[in-house]
Amino acid sequence: MAPKTDIEIARAAKKRPIQEIGETLGIPGEHLLPYGHDKAKVGQDFIDSLADRPNGKLILVTAINPTPAGEGKTTTTVGLGDGLNAIGKKACICIREASLGPNFGMKGGAAGGGYAQVVPMEDMNLHFTGDFHAITSAHNLLAAMIDNHVYWGNEEDIDVRRVSWRRVMDMNDRALRQITASLGGVANGFPREAGFDITVASEVMAILCLARDLADLQERLGAMIVAYRRDKTPVFARDIKADGAMTVLLKDAMQPNLVQTLENNPAFVHGGPFANIAHGCNSVIATKTALKLADYVVTEAGFGADLGAEKFMNIKCRKAGLAPDCVVVVATVRAMKMNGGVAKADLGAENVEAVKAGCANLGRHIANVKSFGVPVVVGINHFAGDTEAEIDAVREFVAAEGAEAILCRHWADGSAGMTEMATRVAEIADGGSADFRTLYPDDMDLFEKIETVAHKIYRAGAVVADSKIRAQLKDWEAQGYGNLPVCMAKTQYSFSTDPTARGAPTGFDLPIREVRLSAGAGFVVAICGEIMTMPGLPKVPSAEVIRLNDDGQIEGLF
Amino acid sequence: MAPKTDIEIARAAKKRPIQEIGETLGIPGEHLLPYGHDKAKVGQDFIDSLADRPNGKLILVTAINPTPAGEGKTTTTVGLGDGLNAIGKKACICIREASLGPNFGMKGGAAGGGYAQVVPMEDMNLHFTGDFHAITSAHNLLAAMIDNHVYWGNEEDIDVRRVSWRRVMDMNDRALRQITASLGGVANGFPREAGFDITVASEVMAILCLARDLADLQERLGAMIVAYRRDKTPVFARDIKADGAMTVLLKDAMQPNLVQTLENNPAFVHGGPFANIAHGCNSVIATKTALKLADYVVTEAGFGADLGAEKFMNIKCRKAGLAPDCVVVVATVRAMKMNGGVAKADLGAENVEAVKAGCANLGRHIANVKSFGVPVVVGINHFAGDTEAEIDAVREFVAAEGAEAILCRHWADGSAGMTEMATRVAEIADGGSADFRTLYPDDMDLFEKIETVAHKIYRAGAVVADSKIRAQLKDWEAQGYGNLPVCMAKTQYSFSTDPTARGAPTGFDLPIREVRLSAGAGFVVAICGEIMTMPGLPKVPSAEVIRLNDDGQIEGLF
Repeated sequence: MAPKTDIEIARAAKKRPIQEIGETLGIPGEHLLPYGHDKAKVGQDFIDSLADRPNGKLILVTAINPTPAGEGKTTTTVGLGDGLNAIGKKACICIREASLGPNFGMKGGAAGGGYAQVVPMEDMNLHFTGDFHAITSAHNLLAAMIDNHVYWGNEEDIDVRRVSWRRVMDMNDRALRQITASLGGVANGFPREAGFDITVASEVMAILCLARDLADLQERLGAMIVAYRRDKTPVFARDIKADGAMTVLLKDAMQPNLVQTLENNPAFVHGGPFANIAHGCNSVIATKTALKLADYVVTEAGFGADLGAEKFMNIKCRKAGLAPDCVVVVATVRAMKMNGGVAKADLGAENVEAVKAGCANLGRHIANVKSFGVPVVVGINHFAGDTEAEIDAVREFVAAEGAEAILCRHWADGSAGMTEMATRVAEIADGGSADFRTLYPDDMDLFEKIETVAHKIYRAGAVVADSKIRAQLKDWEAQGYGNLPVCMAKTQYSFSTDPTARGAPTGFDLPIREVRLSAGAGFVVAICGEIMTMPGLPKVPSAEVIRLNDDGQIEGLF
Repeated sequence: MAPKTDIEIARAAKKRPIQEIGETLGIPGEHLLPYGHDKAKVGQDFIDSLADRPNGKLILVTAINPTPAGEGKTTTTVGLGDGLNAIGKKACICIREASLGPNFGMKGGAAGGGYAQVVPMEDMNLHFTGDFHAITSAHNLLAAMIDNHVYWGNEEDIDVRRVSWRRVMDMNDRALRQITASLGGVANGFPREAGFDITVASEVMAILCLARDLADLQERLGAMIVAYRRDKTPVFARDIKADGAMTVLLKDAMQPNLVQTLENNPAFVHGGPFANIAHGCNSVIATKTALKLADYVVTEAGFGADLGAEKFMNIKCRKAGLAPDCVVVVATVRAMKMNGGVAKADLGAENVEAVKAGCANLGRHIANVKSFGVPVVVGINHFAGDTEAEIDAVREFVAAEGAEAILCRHWADGSAGMTEMATRVAEIADGGSADFRTLYPDDMDLFEKIETVAHKIYRAGAVVADSKIRAQLKDWEAQGYGNLPVCMAKTQYSFSTDPTARGAPTGFDLPIREVRLSAGAGFVVAICGEIMTMPGLPKVPSAEVIRLNDDGQIEGLF
């Protein structure tokens, strides 16, 4: 019999009513706002009531640089949460929400896989609780108000050539990347160049994921720079008086969403900013709420540890006052082999030498994470074809790096395949060996912050930036933005800017093509390479086969 | 003490849990999908199980042509529902959902007013249960797939100059009315003119409100015409293979939303198509479900009876096999005075002669509604300044027209102000005097259908249309669309196309500027005048003052 697919496993799940899941965390029913029977938002009054409780332990799951072989970071996050619960700990996971649009391009979208998944999978890949729609509305209201301001007299003297606030849509639509708007005559405004990004690229998304509460949200929304005046001074969203209405549109979206794993353990799924031009982590409010309700909180960061974990530490933890107690770096034998030069088609054959050669990538990530002062465990996400010799090769390599690697069989066995890892992670987190520190202080120059990440995390040689970019950073420092952290936008496939450079390259140049100020989110984005903020659909989009079958189930989405 | 505002009354409402409201209609809790504690969708399995039940009585609330004095159609619908329940009948109301975007332009948005409202008012004017966001997503997925089809080789040979499918956004944004898309080079597609409408103007909205079930929804979505080929043959949404994925995006949006009135009576709030280029009624699925669950269903139609009731009868009832048992035409003394020539500023003074002069508008509507074979009652929506003599003048006029007028004090008194009206409406509906017939048969020529509405409802003289329009209608007849009803897009302020022509004008020309085929919704739109499908924001949009106050309540939205 063929093994069950992710969707078959998810559909066979015996979900418990979301109120029962809330009870396991001590959330009274009246403070859970249900969305159907299997999703709920946690009310703000209840969250406020938790302020004086102690925090649980925070465990970050990150990974090596992604390869086409697949790493299974979300699956490991879910499996570890289930594993901790299975060994009698009170644990909760926190992951990001999925973007709707890309699901209609390529098949995908599952939240975990195998026997380590979060459900309801269909809803989570469609409208879920409407958070992303709310972000789209808030973002586009601001855009409409900017053009409306210009239309009715332009009191702020906005330079229509310098409107930096674009529009967003949660859809892969390349036709909207670059447009000319306000055509058709006087009644439609002043024609200007404009464009759309996908919703997850919105600064509103980054802000929602970093804001402490609704007051902080409104403050940050107001601080966003949306355009420049003819005299080149910035126009803020609060100058357009959009911050209040945007906050109203986002008030429900700010509340964390509670769902469950296949094993009926609680999972917060909330927020989903881009992991290149933004910080790529679930919301601060979800993580902080989970830490008040559970003894162990397992969360993840986007892409590999060079981007995801670095931003988790230097942006999210710095801003939110969080500190991880243990970090799990996910690796697979297959990915090690690819890093060691094996083609995807040849991954089935045992190749211990390739595994050893490819471990350099993993080693770099282990050292990098340790440099934040936090203990590291490597999780080897087991695939059916992995041989004992290959697995031992990874274990030995990791031991030589002063860490330990534990085999994880959550995909096939759920929490039963995660007992060893869960036990060890709990021991480490409880052991208090973590001494978290960010990589650079707030008061370092912006360019020096970029160089620090480039040298210490990527091991780049020179950071290359022309004088215009350096001058721009100096300008922002003069305007009071010098204390912000930097958010690196770089390929996720390599430590370098060359996506084909696997392993652990050193000494390469890191070119900074562009810098952007996300003044509301509170970081300076350094763009190293082409970053696509509005995807397109492939030749045969998965939308062509997505449909309801005769039983009313969704086909083609996964 | 000042009388309470609508929002103060709504906030003071003692809402019951939505499960209890469902129970009053016999909906078991497991078939109610909650959205928070005060909103829910009714599951399709439960709706399917009702098929063999008898239908309750259907009561339509319509009105005179709207004037700046205000008529109170929704308020009367809510009041009549509460009134029927108060006299011991099992009644339910069905109204439309509000569009989010326009709330950020002008204050407004309430669902009813005074002591005849539906709650939760804030949610209903914001994201509600996400239906409109789902429609936006489905509509824009199709748009992205069309441009994507052209990008990847254009197998269907779509003429990019003849793509009729625009994009939508639930926002007042004049800058998007007319754009040039796909700029920026090869990777972004073939540049072409495009544009956005507001979401409620989407044909997807009209279809959602007319579809019987999800299978019918998909069939209709597939039948939409989205473009023309170089050889001028139509390209359907099913040619782009978008109908399945659109249906998946709309599967929850198709389920009717249950909320409650201030008096805790059940209200379905579902769908909200434009009342000019579409038919302006809540969904068929909501009305049909309500008819299975309640003995009396009170619903409304958009604008005045010349547009709203005409389309309710000729489009919705025809397509869905519905037949109203009684029609309430709402009028106010103030509106009669305005129709009689009084300026808004002078409405406070008694003016019986003006009331009498203005009654011609009401008289025309009474006669028109009767021509559909249904009994009519006039509801005089009472305003504080109305005098006995003025009210009597309306009563006498209506009596002379062979109908009766009943004073309704629901705004001030809730159901207690509606007892007489509710009693009489129930008697009439139960009396079985209705003998519903549509105004024209399916097999009449399209132009003759337009002429029939123009002559019998508007009392126009000539219907003026150039040969190109007549040829277009003939073309559609040849293609098999001749059996569709017509959907008139005309100013709501007059029987004529001149919004200042109050009262009951006759003999005017009715110019048909344009015709459009909504092949999926199943009607031919005849456009008589300028129809704006993407509103703009005013100079000082209400968004500038909308905000959360210190108690977390929304200010400025109402």
